[in-house]
Amino acid sequence: MRWLIVGHGKITANFIEAARGTGHEIVAVAGRNSERASIFANKNGIENSGEDLLLLSEGVDAAYIATPHTGHCDGATTLLEKGVPVLCEKPLAVNHRQAEKMVNAAKESNTFLMEAMWTRHLPIYEEVIDWIKKGLIGEPKLVDASLGFNSPYDPESRLWNPKLAGGSLLDVGIYPLTLADLIYETTPEKISSLAELSPDGVDAHIAITLQFQNSALATLGSAINLSLPNGATILGESGSIEIPSFWCAQKAFTTKGSEKREIFRPHEINGFEYQIREVDRCLSEGLTQSPKVSWKCSLSMIQLMDSIRSEIGVSYPADDEEHDGI
Amino acid sequence: MRWLIVGHGKITANFIEAARGTGHEIVAVAGRNSERASIFANKNGIENSGEDLLLLSEGVDAAYIATPHTGHCDGATTLLEKGVPVLCEKPLAVNHRQAEKMVNAAKESNTFLMEAMWTRHLPIYEEVIDWIKKGLIGEPKLVDASLGFNSPYDPESRLWNPKLAGGSLLDVGIYPLTLADLIYETTPEKISSLAELSPDGVDAHIAITLQFQNSALATLGSAINLSLPNGATILGESGSIEIPSFWCAQKAFTTKGSEKREIFRPHEINGFEYQIREVDRCLSEGLTQSPKVSWKCSLSMIQLMDSIRSEIGVSYPADDEEHDGI
Repeated sequence: MRWLIVGHGKITANFIEAARGTGHEIVAVAGRNSERASIFANKNGIENSGEDLLLLSEGVDAAYIATPHTGHCDGATTLLEKGVPVLCEKPLAVNHRQAEKMVNAAKESNTFLMEAMWTRHLPIYEEVIDWIKKGLIGEPKLVDASLGFNSPYDPESRLWNPKLAGGSLLDVGIYPLTLADLIYETTPEKISSLAELSPDGVDAHIAITLQFQNSALATLGSAINLSLPNGATILGESGSIEIPSFWCAQKAFTTKGSEKREIFRPHEINGFEYQIREVDRCLSEGLTQSPKVSWKCSLSMIQLMDSIRSEIGVSYPADDEEHDGI
Repeated sequence: MRWLIVGHGKITANFIEAARGTGHEIVAVAGRNSERASIFANKNGIENSGEDLLLLSEGVDAAYIATPHTGHCDGATTLLEKGVPVLCEKPLAVNHRQAEKMVNAAKESNTFLMEAMWTRHLPIYEEVIDWIKKGLIGEPKLVDASLGFNSPYDPESRLWNPKLAGGSLLDVGIYPLTLADLIYETTPEKISSLAELSPDGVDAHIAITLQFQNSALATLGSAINLSLPNGATILGESGSIEIPSFWCAQKAFTTKGSEKREIFRPHEINGFEYQIREVDRCLSEGLTQSPKVSWKCSLSMIQLMDSIRSEIGVSYPADDEEHDGI
């Protein structure tokens, strides 16, 4: 497949490595600043670059959108309306309204759209979910997971800037939320969260508790001002599963009484290859969405994050309809 | 010191071992059933036994109350009104109203009363608090701790029976709450909790988030239907502290960058000896309360648990003023 990359931040390095490693081509890169896009293109051996999304999307099979969150909606809808399949970084958008707009654009043009929530495609999770379905740990009762790092406060950076939908929830909190969703496979019945807000009103550190069917709980944390444990534990009625570095997991351990098991599913490249293959598979089968990260799934995740933001009092300029571009 | 023990459940074995090991005497045991109290007394080499608290308290230096929670208020006030110093198992009472009644009885008779929250006296915590005060991990931002075990549902047992103020919060949830209080030394500004309730309406599993000054968080869990990790982590801005088995801790580990330290303060006996010595010290100095577990501290802890119970919808018959006895 021939790809257009939209944006050229740090995460694109992972995408490029995995795409090329699985036989894909990166043929163009789009950025808001032609000069910077051109430097990036030269450095990475990419033929075309510039600011014009539609022009650059000529002849590509799909586009990967990796701009700051606030650029997802505008970039994706522009491409989808033209019928260019889109893999869009997580979160799909800043809020449910924007995500719905993107999904509607995909529906109307009958074009593929998938949120790049790569964790959902990692092979280790097939095994973990299989363990749970086979009753290895009994009914899951608690998912405990956190993802947080300590980044110096910088009001202008993507991470801290409300204009760029900064804060920990949208950037890394989505990973523990995704884990809870993978395990419980349903939306929570109750949400309860408390957060430390930055001087500019984005969440620097948040603790989220979710309650699911049968009162199963998830205790989740994320931070951009604190190194959290960054592991995950799933406790069932009769056993437990540990997943170190759960968002990019290659290993999982299960304990049931004195019986312990370990599985290791190393990434072939860096873990991004599984979602890239899924895009390839879906396009070759003529699908407009992936069953692994369906539109419903992405919409439900962003709706949940909207609810959490409402509870902790975080809102962005992008929550206003006037601000759907970067 | 010569002690009267009120109640003869499992925990009294720890008390007897630690008391005798530090040169104290157990001279009497009171129980609601004379025959069972007498069997316990014979088995444990205790001279007197019976049902009459006041009679059995003749000539003792203090009483240790270890009945189910619902018996604390009645037993303690009876003894305090007669001027018998009381060490009363945690929680001090089922609710704030009962605890206040006990504290008032202690005040009016000028008699010693202390909640047996033994964790507060463990030597390891002096070191941990010293580390924090010296800035070893920077400002504490997260206390994460849980205590939970899997006990089969039995509606008649102390653990599950609302009439005996069952549930995980009062029984074991008080330990992670105590840890947060030890670290932050202040009452939380916000509370948020979700719980799984038993068929009889006690909390089988609860997840609590507390927010303190400067938005520091505590994420705490307890359960009587699930084996929780049972460890504690304190994350600061520049380092962390791990406390395995924090409620009976003998070890702590601290990490700051690549620097790691470990301390080991083994119990002399079983950990109960430190609170027993504190009672001895307070009585010999003529104190009516201990600075380590002040009345204010116990009242604040039970008030917090009242608030949490109100949030999750757990109430006991003992919350009604008519039910202050067992």
